[in-house]
Formats: sequence, C-alpha cells, structure tokens
Amino acid sequence: MKQGHSDKDVDSVAGAVSQKGFTPHVSRGAERTIIGVIGNDRRYELQSFLENLEGVENVIQILKPFKLASRESRTGESSISTGEAVFGGKEVVIIAGPCAVESRSQLEAIAPLVKRAGAKLFRGGAYKPRTSPYSFQGLGEEGLILLSDIRKMTGLPVTTEVLSPETVDLVAEHADLLQIGARNMQNFALLQKVGKCRRPVLLKRGMMNTLEELLMSAEYIMASGNHQVILCERGIRTFEKYSRFTLDISAVPILKSLTHLPVIVDPSHAAGNWEYVSALSRAAVAAGADGLIVEVHHEPQKALSDGAQSLKPERFSALMEELRHIASAIGREMASGT
Amino acid sequence: MKQGHSDKDVDSVAGAVSQKGFTPHVSRGAERTIIGVIGNDRRYELQSFLENLEGVENVIQILKPFKLASRESRTGESSISTGEAVFGGKEVVIIAGPCAVESRSQLEAIAPLVKRAGAKLFRGGAYKPRTSPYSFQGLGEEGLILLSDIRKMTGLPVTTEVLSPETVDLVAEHADLLQIGARNMQNFALLQKVGKCRRPVLLKRGMMNTLEELLMSAEYIMASGNHQVILCERGIRTFEKYSRFTLDISAVPILKSLTHLPVIVDPSHAAGNWEYVSALSRAAVAAGADGLIVEVHHEPQKALSDGAQSLKPERFSALMEELRHIASAIGREMASGT
Amino acid sequence: MKQGHSDKDVDSVAGAVSQKGFTPHVSRGAERTIIGVIGNDRRYELQSFLENLEGVENVIQILKPFKLASRESRTGESSISTGEAVFGGKEVVIIAGPCAVESRSQLEAIAPLVKRAGAKLFRGGAYKPRTSPYSFQGLGEEGLILLSDIRKMTGLPVTTEVLSPETVDLVAEHADLLQIGARNMQNFALLQKVGKCRRPVLLKRGMMNTLEELLMSAEYIMASGNHQVILCERGIRTFEKYSRFTLDISAVPILKSLTHLPVIVDPSHAAGNWEYVSALSRAAVAAGADGLIVEVHHEPQKALSDGAQSLKPERFSALMEELRHIASAIGREMASGT
Amino acid sequence: MKQGHSDKDVDSVAGAVSQKGFTPHVSRGAERTIIGVIGNDRRYELQSFLENLEGVENVIQILKPFKLASRESRTGESSISTGEAVFGGKEVVIIAGPCAVESRSQLEAIAPLVKRAGAKLFRGGAYKPRTSPYSFQGLGEEGLILLSDIRKMTGLPVTTEVLSPETVDLVAEHADLLQIGARNMQNFALLQKVGKCRRPVLLKRGMMNTLEELLMSAEYIMASGNHQVILCERGIRTFEKYSRFTLDISAVPILKSLTHLPVIVDPSHAAGNWEYVSALSRAAVAAGADGLIVEVHHEPQKALSDGAQSLKPERFSALMEELRHIASAIGREMASGT
Repeated sequence: MKQGHSDKDVDSVAGAVSQKGFTPHVSRGAERTIIGVIGNDRRYELQSFLENLEGVENVIQILKPFKLASRESRTGESSISTGEAVFGGKEVVIIAGPCAVESRSQLEAIAPLVKRAGAKLFRGGAYKPRTSPYSFQGLGEEGLILLSDIRKMTGLPVTTEVLSPETVDLVAEHADLLQIGARNMQNFALLQKVGKCRRPVLLKRGMMNTLEELLMSAEYIMASGNHQVILCERGIRTFEKYSRFTLDISAVPILKSLTHLPVIVDPSHAAGNWEYVSALSRAAVAAGADGLIVEVHHEPQKALSDGAQSLKPERFSALMEELRHIASAIGREMASGT
Repeated sequence: MKQGHSDKDVDSVAGAVSQKGFTPHVSRGAERTIIGVIGNDRRYELQSFLENLEGVENVIQILKPFKLASRESRTGESSISTGEAVFGGKEVVIIAGPCAVESRSQLEAIAPLVKRAGAKLFRGGAYKPRTSPYSFQGLGEEGLILLSDIRKMTGLPVTTEVLSPETVDLVAEHADLLQIGARNMQNFALLQKVGKCRRPVLLKRGMMNTLEELLMSAEYIMASGNHQVILCERGIRTFEKYSRFTLDISAVPILKSLTHLPVIVDPSHAAGNWEYVSALSRAAVAAGADGLIVEVHHEPQKALSDGAQSLKPERFSALMEELRHIASAIGREMASGT
Repeated sequence: MKQGHSDKDVDSVAGAVSQKGFTPHVSRGAERTIIGVIGNDRRYELQSFLENLEGVENVIQILKPFKLASRESRTGESSISTGEAVFGGKEVVIIAGPCAVESRSQLEAIAPLVKRAGAKLFRGGAYKPRTSPYSFQGLGEEGLILLSDIRKMTGLPVTTEVLSPETVDLVAEHADLLQIGARNMQNFALLQKVGKCRRPVLLKRGMMNTLEELLMSAEYIMASGNHQVILCERGIRTFEKYSRFTLDISAVPILKSLTHLPVIVDPSHAAGNWEYVSALSRAAVAAGADGLIVEVHHEPQKALSDGAQSLKPERFSALMEELRHIASAIGREMASGT
Repeated sequence: MKQGHSDKDVDSVAGAVSQKGFTPHVSRGAERTIIGVIGNDRRYELQSFLENLEGVENVIQILKPFKLASRESRTGESSISTGEAVFGGKEVVIIAGPCAVESRSQLEAIAPLVKRAGAKLFRGGAYKPRTSPYSFQGLGEEGLILLSDIRKMTGLPVTTEVLSPETVDLVAEHADLLQIGARNMQNFALLQKVGKCRRPVLLKRGMMNTLEELLMSAEYIMASGNHQVILCERGIRTFEKYSRFTLDISAVPILKSLTHLPVIVDPSHAAGNWEYVSALSRAAVAAGADGLIVEVHHEPQKALSDGAQSLKPERFSALMEELRHIASAIGREMASGT
C-alpha cells in the first residue's frame, strides 16, 4: 500500500481480495502495509485488478508463471531423442551444417564432413527469415526435399526452420526437428501449431526476450500437447558492437536450474564472425549446455547467407576435438568422429 | 584491408570485385588500404563474399538498405486516409480504445466517449498476443464482429491486431486499419500477406528492433504491393525498470528524416502505467508525431489486459485538450471534441 | 520460501528475523510461504543475510531506498536558484553554450547570442572527460577564468563540469552550478566532495544507470549536506544506432513522481546530431522538464568537441521561440529573449 | 556525400581536406560519392569538422582508436607478474577472497583456504563503492593494513579497489595489484593517476561500456606511463533479470584478438548468485581467459556486502579442481592446491 494510505483503503483492498475468493494476509509496519494474496490462478487478471484499487502502490508477483516447463513439474531431466541423438542426457549433441540450403552439391559436400567430425544432426535453412525483402529467401519446398535426400544419404536426422503456421505440416514431413527462430519466439500462432505436431521442437530465444519469456513460449508448445522442446540460447541484443549479438552464457546454468528441458547454444549467430565461434562453443559446453548448433560451410565466401560466421569443415573438425576434451573434463561425453 | 596485407591481397580483392561486375576504387594510406565498391544490388551477397577474402579486415555498407520506404524514393510525405482521418497531413490523428475487446457493453461504453473527446479511430484487440498461454487470448472473430458494429454505431474506423497470415483476410473484412504488433514486426510471412491486402497497415516497432529494421519491415509490406504503411514507436527494452519499456522519442525525428511514411506513437505500452501516459503523449506530439494510439478503458480495474496503463475517459478527454494546445504551438491541428 | 521447504525452515527463518530485532509475518499458502519483514534500517545487510538462509527462495525489497530525495521527505517541490534562474518553479530554465571552452573569442561570440535568445545560464566545459587520451582535454583552470569573465560580461551564471575531488574547490570558485557528468554519476568520492560544497549541483544520469541509482547518487550529495541538486536526463545506451544515446523521455514524469528535486534534460548529447535536437527539446518541455541544457556553437565545424550536435545561434534562437509556445501550452513560462 | 550533392560540394569538401593537410580520395558512383581521407592524427577533430561541411552525409572512422593497447603495437602477449603469479602466460591465474574486508578474523579464516585451493592472489575491498550512502562503505585504511598483514601471513599478493586519485598512493603502499572498478572505468583522473604508479592495474569493464571504450581506458593508463594493465570482463547491463549482469563471454576472444593485454573474468558480480558462479567460471576458462577473480566467503550469510554471490571455501575448492581439468583440456595450466 502507498505511504499515507488509510485504514479504510486496507479494508477495502482486503475485502476485494476476499470477494475474488482469495485470503488476504495483512502485515502492518511503521511506514508501509503489505497485503499478501496466495494463489496462482487468474494471477494476471488479479494483478491488473489490484493495481487499480485506491491506495495500492505496487503489486509484486512471487510465483513463477511457467508450470509444465518448470523443474517443479517433473523429477529429473527431459530427454528428447531423434535418430541416434539424445538431448538432455550425458552426451553433448552437436548439430552442424550451412545456414541456408543452397544446392544439392553444397549439401553433399558439407554433410559427410560434419558427420565424420562427429555431428549428430544436420542443419540447413529452406525458409530463411531475412531482414531485407531483397535478400535470398531460401529454396522453400525444394530445399526441404534436398534435406530429406541428405538424411537418406548420411543417416543424420535434419533440422530446419519453420516460419509460418501454414508450412508446419510440410516441414514436419521432411524434418526430424522443427526449428523456431529467434524472430518467431513469440509468434504464438506458430507455437500453438507446432505444439500440435509430433516432431520435437528446437525453440530459439528471441534476441530481445527474457529467459522467463522463453520458458513461457515453451509453455505454449507444451500446453498445446507437445512436450518435446529443446531450448536454444543464441545471443541477445546489447550496445556492444564487436559481436553481432551478446551470447548470454549465464542462460545455460539459469535455465538448467529453472527447467527440466534440454538447453543448447548457437555460437555462430551470437558471434557473427567465425573467429569467435570456437571460443564460444567451448564456453557453452563448459557451462553445461546439452548441445550446440554450429554453422559450417565448405565455401563460406560463396555462402548466400551468413558466410562470415561459418566455420570451414577442417576448422569445425578441430573444434570438435577440443570440445571432446572439455566434455570429458566436466564428466560428459561426446561422440567421436569417424 | 588488414594492417600488414600484401599488394597481392589488394590485387586479388580488386580482381574479385571486378569479376563480380563492380569497379574497385583503391586508396592506399600509410597504415591501411581502403577499397571502395560502388553499387547497391546484391549488397548482402557481396558483403559475405568480401568478408571472406584474404587480407580483408572489415566490410562497411554505406548506402541505406531500404528503398521504397526511404525519403529518396518519393517527394513529400505519404498521406494515408481511413474514414475522416488522414495520417501524414497537418492533423495529428488520435486512435483510442481499450487494449482488448471484452464485450459489447464495454465497447458501447467507451467508443462514444473517445469519439466525443476527439479520437478519429477506435482501437480494440480481438486476437491478443499474450506471453502466457494461460492469459486471456481475446474474443477472436466474435470480437471482430463487435468492432464492425461499433464502427456502424459511431462512424469511427477501427483498428485491430492481426496475428497470423491465415486470419488476415478475416480481419481485413472487419477492420479499417490492420495492426502488426511489436512481437510480429519480423514475422515476414505475415508482412508479405498484409502486403497483398488493400487495407492500410499500422506497423509497430519491435521492442528490440532498430529503426533500420523497422523500415526494412515496412519495405517488406511495400515490396509486396501495399504502400499504405504507418509506423509506430511503442518503446524498446532497456535496463530501466520503472517504465515497462523505454519510449524512444528520438525515433520520431529520426524516422521523419529517413522516410516519407507517417509516424505515430503508442505511449500506453511504453509507460505501462497510466500516470505517465499524458506526459509521453504530450512529448510525442511536440516531437512531431503524426498521431497517437492510446489505451482508454472505462473500468480499468476490471480490464482483462493492461488495465494498469489505461486512461479513464475523463482523463483521456483532459489529455486531448492539452494535446490540442501543443499541436497548435507547433503549427499543427487536432480535431476538437464534440 | 522455496517450494518444498520444511516447517523447520520457516521457523528457523522467522527466528533469525526476530533475533535481528524485526517482527516476522508468516503467510502460508498451498504452494508457497511468504515471510514479511517490516523495517527500513540495515536493509542491505538483511537482504544478504536472508538470502543465505536455508529454504529461502527470494528476498524482495518493497520500500524505496532513497529518503532525502524522495517525495515523501518533503512537501512540494524543491526550488533551486542561481542568478535570476529558479529551477523547479513555474519557469522552464534554459542553459546554453558550447560543449567546451576553447578561447575567449569563442565565448564572447556565443554568450551574448544565447542570452539574447533567452538562456538563463551559460555552459562550457573547462575539464573535458574524453574517451580517448589523445582528444582535446579542455583548457582547465584557464577555461574557468574565461567562464568567470563571461559571467561578468553578460551577467549570466555559469555551469561547468567538475571531474575529480581535488578540483571541486577551484571549480566552485568560478562556477555557479557544478556539473557532475554522466561518467561520474557513481564517482562516490566526487559526490561526497560536492556534497560538502555550497554550490548547487547539476547531476547527470549515467548512460548505464537506472533512475533509482540516479536518485541514490543525489542521496549521496544530500546526505553529505548539500540539498541543492538538479537531476538531468541525457540519454541511455541501447542497441539503437541512429541516435548517439536513447533519450529516456519517460524519466521526466517518473522522476517528477518520485522526487521533489528539479529535473532537466540534455537533448544534445542524447541526439548526437543537431538535426534532432529541436524535436527532443520540444518533447522534453512538453513532458514537464524544468529546464534544458543545450549545446550551441557559432562555428560548429570548428568545434574541438561535439560539433555535430551543436546548434548554431540562429537555430537555437528559433528553437527558443518554439519552446515558449510549448511552455505556454502546458501552463508554464519561459523568459523571452531580448 | 548526401544523395543529390553538387560537384561543388565535392570540390569544397576535398579542398577542405587538403587544407587540413590530408589527401582526399574521391570515388564517384551512380548514387553516391565517397571521399576517403587517410591518416590517424587529429581524427576526432576531423570527424566533427567534416560532419559539418555542406553535402556530407556521414563520416565513418575505419582505423581503431587505441594504439598502445592494440595487437599491432606489440608482438606477442604482455605478461604481467606479481608475486608468483604471471598473467598472460600459459597459466590460468585465480584471484579469490571476500567482497569486502570486514575484520582480521574474517581474512584469517578465508585466505589460507583459498591459498590451499590454488588461488595465486587474495582479494578484498577496503574502499567499497556502494550505490547507497547508507550501506557499509568499507574499513578504509584499516582494511588496507589488514590486507598487508594477510600478505605477510600467506605470501599471497593482494588486490584491492582504489576509488579516488587521492588514495592511489596509500593503496599502492599496501596492494600488489590496483583494481579500478566498473563504475570508475571512465574516471579519467583516476586512470591518469594509476598510470603514474608502478603497480600493475586490474581494469574492470564498466557495466555499460563497449570493449572499445575499455581499451581506450587502458590506453589512458598506458599513455600515462604504466603498461601493466590487466583487463577484466564482469558483466554488462541488459534487460535480462535472472542474472545480476549479463556476462559477455564473447569479450574474451574479442579482446584477445584486439589486444596483447591479459584478459580475466569476474564471474561473481556477473552472476549475482553463487549457484551460477561455477558454470560461468568454467565457461570463462574454456573461452580462453587468462584468469578469474572470484568472491569467496566462509560465512556468506554474514557478509557485509554481496554475500549472495560468494562461494563457500569448500565449493571454491571443488570449482578449482574442475577448472584444472578444463585448463588442461585446452592446453593451459593451473596451479594445484596444497
């Protein structure tokens, strides 16, 4: 309650709380009075309702708003499988591939190399969300078919981004793991649609979103029926200009303490520059990430998107070797290359 | 070029630029060499291509990436009409109404009051993008029908948010102005869909998007065929906690210098608290905004969403009077109430 | 308390609170228990103490940490006078002058023009905080003497920045209003030193600081004995790149609601570009600022610092005319030029 | 140049550049003209000068503004020694101790434990920069003497923060490494003063400063004569609320690529919560940091400052063991405990 509130104000707020079906707990101090209200249902309506009552200074929510995604809803870790990969177990799972699907020859050049280096899934965008309408927008369905062919060729499950509710079914036919990109983290129509799909979902944090909002977006997917959600930190926007985004490495231990869902990291989009990708990858694994999604291109100077942040295959292979040592140093495992 | 590059590196970059069909301009200094490349086409591909060449330190783009939205593409201001309202002219146009459409009686209580106070459009959300899947999600089509009825009753054109490509046609049947919310500013599938629609579009800036990205999203809509785009600043995310978002008031003069499109301001979502809405509204008009979109509710303590930031009708009416004086102080006009 | 805490934990926390001399208020709900502690002394020590007790999930502070600066400590507004200017009254007070003191002829050219346009104080930096050690660092004591001479010549009180505790006395000999710059907002040794000085202080918000921290820094000065503090919003750092800083216009109404101290705005450093200074100045006055501090230079292209954001005198004069209309539109006053 | 500039504008800018003693390089394109100016001296003056010329759209600086701190000024890494510790070599050096010096018994309890765990320096604040004037401000000189005694007792060199130019000499008498805190990163008077001191300096990044500004502040110290500067990333301010600050882990590889100075990380202030400190520490070492500065307290619940983020000695000791494995995984070393 505001300083200088009257006893009548307190009675009136307490009465209103009772009328809504909750029990008010009044604590009076020399300078302030606090009225506790315990209950989790209709919390948003209650917040707005209480803020507008006479004499109320501030309404503070204590309970966390996510449920299905929270640690408290489940004992142990969720583990999510696709192909031979299991996210959320002892193994650190690496997804690798080019930013965009450009051609069959491109995929055929890259996929066997990342598989040999130890990657467990292949990535490649068929629908590309581009800031400019004049940039390359992806091959669309043709790209999806190429990805299917690559799975057949290599045995690696594939992941690709889905941009709109209408294409979810089509993408789910071809992809093993559906990616929701940073710009769509709060595209609620899309979240609900993938929530009705049987494919596991890789949900990227928006560049402008809090960890609580990321968990609420996971909650949308889970509340729609699909509990197979993998969270991905990929950098947030700050004032710093040397990196494209600021990788929020703290997100790894914080998310692991809040949720049972697997947490992976995308070092490539955060860095925006291949020179920093290896250091960020090592940091992510050391911090406890369950996996990484890394951009690899055999000819980055010819890439149609994000060439500057792509690793060449040989560099990726050397990184995988480093990561194996780090995983082992913290008691985890990583598949060896072949 | 990087310090310590060789002449061969310079020749090789210049050669690569020539091969792509551009003319390289080489300037050699004591410490650095700069190679200028002039041309606007394929700039994104070129960036990536050049960044990967040996000896290149940095690729800096000089030209702005938006075209149709830029001042240079059009003489004078775009003016966009709906009903009696004209955005982008001498008049400052006020849109007002509740955050969400809740019921017929609610709309019938609020709409005549905001009209009497001088508002030229009515607002109300039928589809609500909510962070939590457990919050009120809006009345959907029923809400759209109520909005249509209110237009008939008051003569005010209505604006409401459209959340997904599938519902664009339905929303366009009922609404005079289609609103793209902050969370969908980079939902490119949605932008392209409203770009094919004949209704004017109110495009809100994402809470962590740059002004350049806002203009690129306008460019998506315009490049799809719809040039009737109104831009809206509604606050960005920063570290400050007393306001819900930080209203970026500089966006008004900056956008007016970069684009011919009308620019309005949403003071309600930025403030998150009705106590600050009046000051922000006055600031926006004084800074040169072409209009405002303000939340008004007759019973904010019962609002199903954003009650805390809604003005009561009498307060809104007093604000309108203040705004008229400000508009007049800077040589603009505002409709008088009735 | 954490979910799953034991009754013993609750008793133990409540006991610890009692031992510290406070009364615990325990509210038990189905999912959580909340223990209220009322009291304002030793709050920081208590926070740390409680956070470390077994079973405690979170410690939330309800009372605001500033006292002398808070609205609750004083009825009405503080008004702070220097020369003919009164900050915090009905009049909107304008401070104007160059970023840096460069020469006697420069000051003699600018000062009479800003006085004629209606400015009530003259500004100019003698000690310049520069990001680079290789940039012009100001004329130092020589600059202070020039400022004193300008006061004699024009009758305008002068304000200039003080950078370190050692120079406070010297600056206070020459300046009527001591400016603490954004980079020194949390230079606590400096705050304490000006707190022992009799000159009023113009305290700028740090580019990285919250409004609460700004008020805590004012509290440092006030707690040291000097209650004459004027607060200044000058833009915060965000991801947006078209403006040098993002002017947080909401700071004006928020600070006016939290404190009795006068609040002014610096539109020049926020904009970083003279083209946007007029719009931001109008916005600040419309939002309720008690004054402005504006950079004016007669030859901005020759300025030794911040030339790009300086208004030419004729442009400043036109702006003053606009501001007078805005001030009048909101029931305030501004001195007319001569 | 702006679109639509005249040939006369180009000639006039080129002429002005020549007059300043530089050679202009003019590149004309269909839409724009670019005028290159090569040279590093007087760059800030030139920027301002050019921005104000008729027809100029934008002035972009290409060369980095730091010199002594840059990789280009020195072959190999700087290594900075104090006691047995060498920052910038193969070893990862750990600094540990309490946030604040509270008492002799406190230091005597903690110091032997962190030494035994493998820490090479002891930390503890004697002068504490506190947001509130009512918080514990440190023991001052008494604290410095206690630190000296601890060095004698354990043989560990000590580091402590210096807050103002006047106390630099006193602090340098007692401390082996002078710490400049985040809030003083741009306290230029202080930087110049420690620049004249013979002690190595630990320079923390400000919570809203760019990496370039951090390097410019190092440049201040180096340009004043002291080249022994260790840089420290400690988290920046963003919108995320679960962590106290967002640790910018990318700062490690970016700084290592820009400068020859050693780079360490403070995981404790970034996390604000001891539960996340271990993960951030591992990430920092994996990313390539040359060391860490970690808060350790034997009774965190009684700490007078920052108890929530302090590790208990046994936890610190376990962390050191983990870090040794990570250091070894990336080919570095860490002293074993005793």
